[in-house]
Amino acid sequence: MSDNQNVNDQNLVIFMPSGRRGRIEAGQSLLDAARQLGVEIESICNGRLTCGKCKIQIEDGDFAKHGIFSSQNHVTPPGEKELELLDSMNSKGCRLSCSAFIQGDVLAFVPEESRAQKQIIRKSATERVIDINPAVRQVYVEVDKAFLGEHRGDWGRLQDALAKQFQLTDLSIDLTVLRELQANLRKKDWAVTVTIWQEKRVIDVQPGYIEGTYGLAVDIGSTTIAGYLCDLRTGKILATESMMNPQVTYGEDLMSRISYAMMHKDGLEKMHTAVIDALNRLAASAAREAGLRPRQIHEAVFVGNTTMVHILLGISPVELGGAPFALANRDAMDVSARELGLRFHPGANVHVLPSEAGHVGADNVGVLIAEEPYNQDEIVLTVDVGTNAEILLGNRTWMYSASSPTGPAFEGAQITYGMRAAPGAIERVRIDPVTKMSRFRVIGEERWSDEWPQHSEAAVAEQPTHLAAGICGSGIIEVIAEMYLAGILLPDGRFDPELEHELVQWNGRKGAYILARGDQASGGKPILVTQDDVRSIQLAKAALYAGAKLLMMRAGIDRVDRVVLAGAFGSYIDPKHAMILGLIPDCELPKVYAVGNAAGDGARIALLNREKRKEAQTVAHWVKYVETAVDPDFQNEFVGAIHLPHASDAFPHLAGLLPEVKEVVGENGRSRRRRIKS
Amino acid sequence: MSDNQNVNDQNLVIFMPSGRRGRIEAGQSLLDAARQLGVEIESICNGRLTCGKCKIQIEDGDFAKHGIFSSQNHVTPPGEKELELLDSMNSKGCRLSCSAFIQGDVLAFVPEESRAQKQIIRKSATERVIDINPAVRQVYVEVDKAFLGEHRGDWGRLQDALAKQFQLTDLSIDLTVLRELQANLRKKDWAVTVTIWQEKRVIDVQPGYIEGTYGLAVDIGSTTIAGYLCDLRTGKILATESMMNPQVTYGEDLMSRISYAMMHKDGLEKMHTAVIDALNRLAASAAREAGLRPRQIHEAVFVGNTTMVHILLGISPVELGGAPFALANRDAMDVSARELGLRFHPGANVHVLPSEAGHVGADNVGVLIAEEPYNQDEIVLTVDVGTNAEILLGNRTWMYSASSPTGPAFEGAQITYGMRAAPGAIERVRIDPVTKMSRFRVIGEERWSDEWPQHSEAAVAEQPTHLAAGICGSGIIEVIAEMYLAGILLPDGRFDPELEHELVQWNGRKGAYILARGDQASGGKPILVTQDDVRSIQLAKAALYAGAKLLMMRAGIDRVDRVVLAGAFGSYIDPKHAMILGLIPDCELPKVYAVGNAAGDGARIALLNREKRKEAQTVAHWVKYVETAVDPDFQNEFVGAIHLPHASDAFPHLAGLLPEVKEVVGENGRSRRRRIKS
Repeated sequence: MSDNQNVNDQNLVIFMPSGRRGRIEAGQSLLDAARQLGVEIESICNGRLTCGKCKIQIEDGDFAKHGIFSSQNHVTPPGEKELELLDSMNSKGCRLSCSAFIQGDVLAFVPEESRAQKQIIRKSATERVIDINPAVRQVYVEVDKAFLGEHRGDWGRLQDALAKQFQLTDLSIDLTVLRELQANLRKKDWAVTVTIWQEKRVIDVQPGYIEGTYGLAVDIGSTTIAGYLCDLRTGKILATESMMNPQVTYGEDLMSRISYAMMHKDGLEKMHTAVIDALNRLAASAAREAGLRPRQIHEAVFVGNTTMVHILLGISPVELGGAPFALANRDAMDVSARELGLRFHPGANVHVLPSEAGHVGADNVGVLIAEEPYNQDEIVLTVDVGTNAEILLGNRTWMYSASSPTGPAFEGAQITYGMRAAPGAIERVRIDPVTKMSRFRVIGEERWSDEWPQHSEAAVAEQPTHLAAGICGSGIIEVIAEMYLAGILLPDGRFDPELEHELVQWNGRKGAYILARGDQASGGKPILVTQDDVRSIQLAKAALYAGAKLLMMRAGIDRVDRVVLAGAFGSYIDPKHAMILGLIPDCELPKVYAVGNAAGDGARIALLNREKRKEAQTVAHWVKYVETAVDPDFQNEFVGAIHLPHASDAFPHLAGLLPEVKEVVGENGRSRRRRIKS
Repeated sequence: MSDNQNVNDQNLVIFMPSGRRGRIEAGQSLLDAARQLGVEIESICNGRLTCGKCKIQIEDGDFAKHGIFSSQNHVTPPGEKELELLDSMNSKGCRLSCSAFIQGDVLAFVPEESRAQKQIIRKSATERVIDINPAVRQVYVEVDKAFLGEHRGDWGRLQDALAKQFQLTDLSIDLTVLRELQANLRKKDWAVTVTIWQEKRVIDVQPGYIEGTYGLAVDIGSTTIAGYLCDLRTGKILATESMMNPQVTYGEDLMSRISYAMMHKDGLEKMHTAVIDALNRLAASAAREAGLRPRQIHEAVFVGNTTMVHILLGISPVELGGAPFALANRDAMDVSARELGLRFHPGANVHVLPSEAGHVGADNVGVLIAEEPYNQDEIVLTVDVGTNAEILLGNRTWMYSASSPTGPAFEGAQITYGMRAAPGAIERVRIDPVTKMSRFRVIGEERWSDEWPQHSEAAVAEQPTHLAAGICGSGIIEVIAEMYLAGILLPDGRFDPELEHELVQWNGRKGAYILARGDQASGGKPILVTQDDVRSIQLAKAALYAGAKLLMMRAGIDRVDRVVLAGAFGSYIDPKHAMILGLIPDCELPKVYAVGNAAGDGARIALLNREKRKEAQTVAHWVKYVETAVDPDFQNEFVGAIHLPHASDAFPHLAGLLPEVKEVVGENGRSRRRRIKS
């Protein structure tokens, strides 16, 4: 035991589970010891016994000097206030590391919730851990009161307190914060909670002890804007919001927006204002859902394609409309939220991830840091499906990227009954190959449509919460793949003219499939998939496929080890249907993963971990960009990829799934592939 | 001679007049050599033969190796373009250092106009040299054009060019500049002039080669705002503007403004908006006078007392209204001009000098760096006369400061016919002791009033440009001192009741002196100096005197070596009249200097030389502030100083100038000092 120990000895202190250890002078708190040994223990109140964040357990230790012993008695005993606080937290038997002073060798266990470096798990192609290390940090500090004859100024007094209590020096202060500083210092007797950005700048000073700092990660797509409101201390997503990008009024795809900026004197300003307004609405709505106010958002990370980022920042996108596709800025930027007109906290910063090249923007960098293909041995093909599809190919030693102009079809635009992923959108479809009858699932209703009760006979409670309102991206991919598998579509994408069925309407030579009956639809009229819809999807998927093939060609490979399907629309894309449609090159099916909005996840990761911003900057420069727009190989691949895949095609892994085809010569003498009827 | 010299030798290069020397490899330009040896030669175009700023003379040298020789042949001969440019500058025989490449030992003379570190002379108590080293700098740079397959982005390309051509790295770019960057780069074929703030931030990018960057220095007084528009390359003042501070609507002195902010919910905002509007008007008017636009102002330095600085920054001044007089911030600040609503260049920065204490602000720090008493051996008393007078006492080893609430009388406010220093203001006054007749001079008219022609008889051309409109600060000091010397006023400040004179009107027991006749005044009515005016000045001068005496008491001295009189109103204060009035303690008259608006000069110095900003920060912390408001010694001195000085008083240096007095006992039995009539 320790009784024979001299308290002035240097004592061995070990922190578990990290195992960090070192000799510490007696009389220091375990919190100070942890800091000296590089063990991060959370502490907001810094020893004032108000926050209770620095809780630890003192364990039995096995020290060479003593053998196994309990080190409980090697720290000063807890005081009344500490015991009360621990009791109120249901943490009897624990100690607060700020108030346990070392008197001998100590073995301390730091529980998960006390670790300053928290982690959350992100669902991904491979499960990934995100360390919580955001750009903003809150500290509680008690400041010297002003008195006559002492002239430091209130900001000087606050700086001194932050330096002394938290070793934070060389700080600047936002003018809006300085304006309220004197009043806020005096409201709770010179005790304040200070929010600090990147250890550099004071962005908020709130009276008294306040807990909670929040951030917003947003993926600004051409068609869809998706945002995540996060608790920056825990990493938890508090609200998820998505909305249509109101810029679609000015053009559905990037080129038409660029033209709009070129042709209209106020075009840029209109589109800039539209996206800023949208972001303000999105923030307000996410904050409401989380029981917060937008003013509580202290930090934001935005991603988007290069055109979206230009317009967001108020920079004309016209240079992106023609060769050499020069970006105004390729690197990451930090911009004041209020300067952009965003009604977050007035001191809030907006971080925009870097871009790679004129057509591969911050959204693709978001996918990169979310999926980390640059940390894999296997060759991974990552496609982010949107109005512009971004494609990444490579592993830890090399990486190519490209952008493919797929158009907005995958996001439900240019589709007759297309809609964004919102309640009522059809997101899953199955078609019986014999009866050609569909069953589907809509967002907001768990049951498939064939489990819905018949209107006339069922009780109100059994009715579906939402009838079908339209088809979102994942639904459109599934329905067309299913129509193909069910023999409604031919390999060239035409409706089979020989098929006569009550579910297929004909308008001249153009067919249309009845996906939902009028009684299943909220509008009361059937929801159709038309020949034009099929054509739109064919063009989109051909662009995507051609982009992927181009990168494989440039890399000199003919197969990939893994495919990651990302996209901000609806539920995850079903890998099988994506491959049946020919969206992606052949791959073993179990090696094809859908990860949802990886670009948005990347934004969220950069929001929660500032080191990831540096990683983003490095990899954005490292990736080799391949320009598709002017490449003849791309055009070739594109033309060859317009048809739907078949069994004898380049998809060995789909054997047994795809229809068999034979070459037939049509009446006009042209050869055509026809399905071999089973 | 040099013919036997190996051109690969390290050659001795000497620059005069600095005498800096070193061995430089052959083939380098003399401009590069200068940079390596720490000799600053100006260059805007960096070797493109467009600016001609880097002109030098190559001299006969006395080198140990060669004896005396001409080093003309030790550099490459001039090309055609260089000769043309030199010719156009009338500088035949000179060379451009960027285009003269070293081939042997060289002795070069750098003429004054080519030195990057320029200097100007400032008139001061002692003449002072200001090194021109502003916070903003312009460079001309040619940027790599964007081409397909190269993805740096335009800002990346500009950064690379600035790093390569000017060794400027780690730069950031203002968002407003980034917004116009792509268009501006392309307007003149990727050649731009870049304005850089503090070697850190790009604040302007203009197409092509542009010369000229301008700054505004402003002293924001409680009553008067004075501004200087300067050429930041030459240091020259291009325009001087002054105007009334529109905040006077909300209160004449600081306390009433603070009350206004306290009593009115929108009080701060109203006063903030008023001063920002005024600064915008002042900038517009100064720019117009200089043939510029306010948008060409790239940098500003503001000084003012602490209340003015708080309101300028939009910070409530209420804490300054009561003990402990806590400042929001004591240190210097850099604030975006556009964030303050100032319509300068959108990338412009506003630097606000630091304050010393709750009642001694950036204006006093301006006086400090303009007068540099901290570099003197003699003990200097510096008083800055305004609505609040700031007082400095000390030398290079110690320095005290204080603030005295003199009220606005010295600036013409609270004076019956007072006005600010504008055309028509009486600024100089003499009164004949025998006839009691005045003669005066007004701003805008060189002749004294007794040289003006009589109205009825003179030609229009001989009429004064301005008639008297009122009395400004320097005028009011002179007229009261002259009234005292002429026996119109008694030592206690009363009008002599025994004096009956056509120029003195009586209203009961209150006299009034006719300074200007109706026919000399623009209003057509006489301009009077009333008993109340005299009382206002007595209170003001007593506050000033008491503040100075308090500092002398604290420093333990009973005399000062030198007095510097500063003030932003009218022409310089006449030292003799100031002393006769008892504004300042006794001093040898030739050692009393008037320096005009030293606070504004300090702002101008900090505008022209960024190193002076650091000096300001250091001395602001070093000066020991003495609080007058609560000091009983101040009250005593104040009461004792209300009378006007007399010959038997504490002013030995005024012997022969001041009236002799004797004690007389009045009818009411009280003793009074009466002048001994000569």
